[in-house]
Amino acid sequence: MSVKLTILGCNSATPRVNAYPTAQLLEIKNHYFLIDCGEGTQVQLRKYHVKFSKIKNIFISHLHGDHFFGLVGLVSTFRLLNRNSELHIYGPKGLKEIITLQLKLSNSWTNYPLIFHELSSDKSELIFDDEKVEVYTIPLKHRIYTNGFIFREKLGERKLNMSEISKYKEIEICDYQNLKNGRDFKLENGEIIKNKALTLNPPKPKSYAYCSDTAYFPDIIPIIKNVDCLYHETTFLSDREVLATKTQHSTALQAAKIAEKANVNKLIIGHYSGRYKNKEAFLLEAKQIFKNTFLAAEGEVFKF
Amino acid sequence: MSVKLTILGCNSATPRVNAYPTAQLLEIKNHYFLIDCGEGTQVQLRKYHVKFSKIKNIFISHLHGDHFFGLVGLVSTFRLLNRNSELHIYGPKGLKEIITLQLKLSNSWTNYPLIFHELSSDKSELIFDDEKVEVYTIPLKHRIYTNGFIFREKLGERKLNMSEISKYKEIEICDYQNLKNGRDFKLENGEIIKNKALTLNPPKPKSYAYCSDTAYFPDIIPIIKNVDCLYHETTFLSDREVLATKTQHSTALQAAKIAEKANVNKLIIGHYSGRYKNKEAFLLEAKQIFKNTFLAAEGEVFKF
Repeated sequence: MSVKLTILGCNSATPRVNAYPTAQLLEIKNHYFLIDCGEGTQVQLRKYHVKFSKIKNIFISHLHGDHFFGLVGLVSTFRLLNRNSELHIYGPKGLKEIITLQLKLSNSWTNYPLIFHELSSDKSELIFDDEKVEVYTIPLKHRIYTNGFIFREKLGERKLNMSEISKYKEIEICDYQNLKNGRDFKLENGEIIKNKALTLNPPKPKSYAYCSDTAYFPDIIPIIKNVDCLYHETTFLSDREVLATKTQHSTALQAAKIAEKANVNKLIIGHYSGRYKNKEAFLLEAKQIFKNTFLAAEGEVFKF
Repeated sequence: MSVKLTILGCNSATPRVNAYPTAQLLEIKNHYFLIDCGEGTQVQLRKYHVKFSKIKNIFISHLHGDHFFGLVGLVSTFRLLNRNSELHIYGPKGLKEIITLQLKLSNSWTNYPLIFHELSSDKSELIFDDEKVEVYTIPLKHRIYTNGFIFREKLGERKLNMSEISKYKEIEICDYQNLKNGRDFKLENGEIIKNKALTLNPPKPKSYAYCSDTAYFPDIIPIIKNVDCLYHETTFLSDREVLATKTQHSTALQAAKIAEKANVNKLIIGHYSGRYKNKEAFLLEAKQIFKNTFLAAEGEVFKF
């Protein structure tokens, strides 16, 4: 099963008509992870027919408005929709106070468990872990405390090799789970059939790294090394490298350098400054360094 | 000069695609008053080509999200646009804490004077007053502390009656302002020409009352008596009067009763529950009581 990434918004700062700020939906191993939540994200989720109840985990990179001003509205809407399942929110320290203050003053506490996981470490840390997926922070370099996130599938069960298994009448359905778990099989005559003779390797686990907002910051390379897909912000082109450095954003060339050095498979770029009308220029610039680059665009779906 | 009201959004609670929550722009005597500011309002302002710098006063009725979740984004965008003129925000106590907490945590204080006028009185009070317009609160009945707002033009200067004035060579241009101010004119021979013989009455001042959200609440009638235009919420039709009472909203029939009893000239209704697909039913119900009723709709402009 491939990983599916839907871009709900990919523009920086000031919202414009048909230019939503940052939000992404990552579908990975039946999880629906919402990554950042700029103003208007809940409308974007409706537009792209995402069932609200499927979202159980939201990851907020930092507390600049274009990455989280849509969160309180979404949290409130979940309440109006009579949600009862847990909602986990991962984001910088302070986010809980912002959301709960507004719920308190509007006298509308959630009718579902709202669980904040506030982040303050400047080291990469494991923040989500279940049997299928783990998520680590990627400390970034920006004007305020900011994390990217790396989503890693875990190695799945081994696949049954039915044409081999069918050669042994002693192997019954009730043995299948042990085989999937990697165990060898012992025949009645004492002979041991090695697991590898009966099963196939599981699919290679996929990984996705999200890095926005950040200055050019090679420290992230060891963390994102070899990921299948990297989203890296490109607020500016190289013509404004000085401004990028000043505001702690990246140019398309810098994002491509990170992708190349980290040996990622695919690079998606976005978080474009409103100064640039022509997004193709970002692609051209990044491709000078890293060929397998794609432009984020609202509604675009990437599978890997 | 007529008053111009632009509906930026007129739906209740959960935002849907093309169904923005409450926000209105009132143009009155060269003021651009923004009334409520649901999520996505700044995009709506762009869509309807409102120059952001013209907005100097924002009135927030209450702290339910569909009336103010767009405010922090707009306040932040003003900063990104390098605003330097004052912004005045009138709204319930607590609003300042909500906005400033977010500015603090994002390390992005405004570069313009942001002035909060927090409201907590349960009596109608004058909250804005200049030479041309005054604004009073309208205490409403809702689940949390809520105010409507009434905007009243002041009586303007008297108009010069040039065909009469031209009969007197002694009246010079430098006398005109005194005439506009209502003074009589004394001829050199001592004769006094009454002001009314030289000037015409100024246009009748216009008034607009905004009432959302509220249960049926006849206490507001003395405050809104005889206004030119009343906006009154109609979250429900009469088929859900019990629900309206429970949630402290109004039905279309109740809004029409208020309009009739207050002898207003025109009634605009809105804040429709998402339950109703057919907005015409609201109009039909209200018109049973009050003929001069109009449906609010996104982008609709009312002049009066």
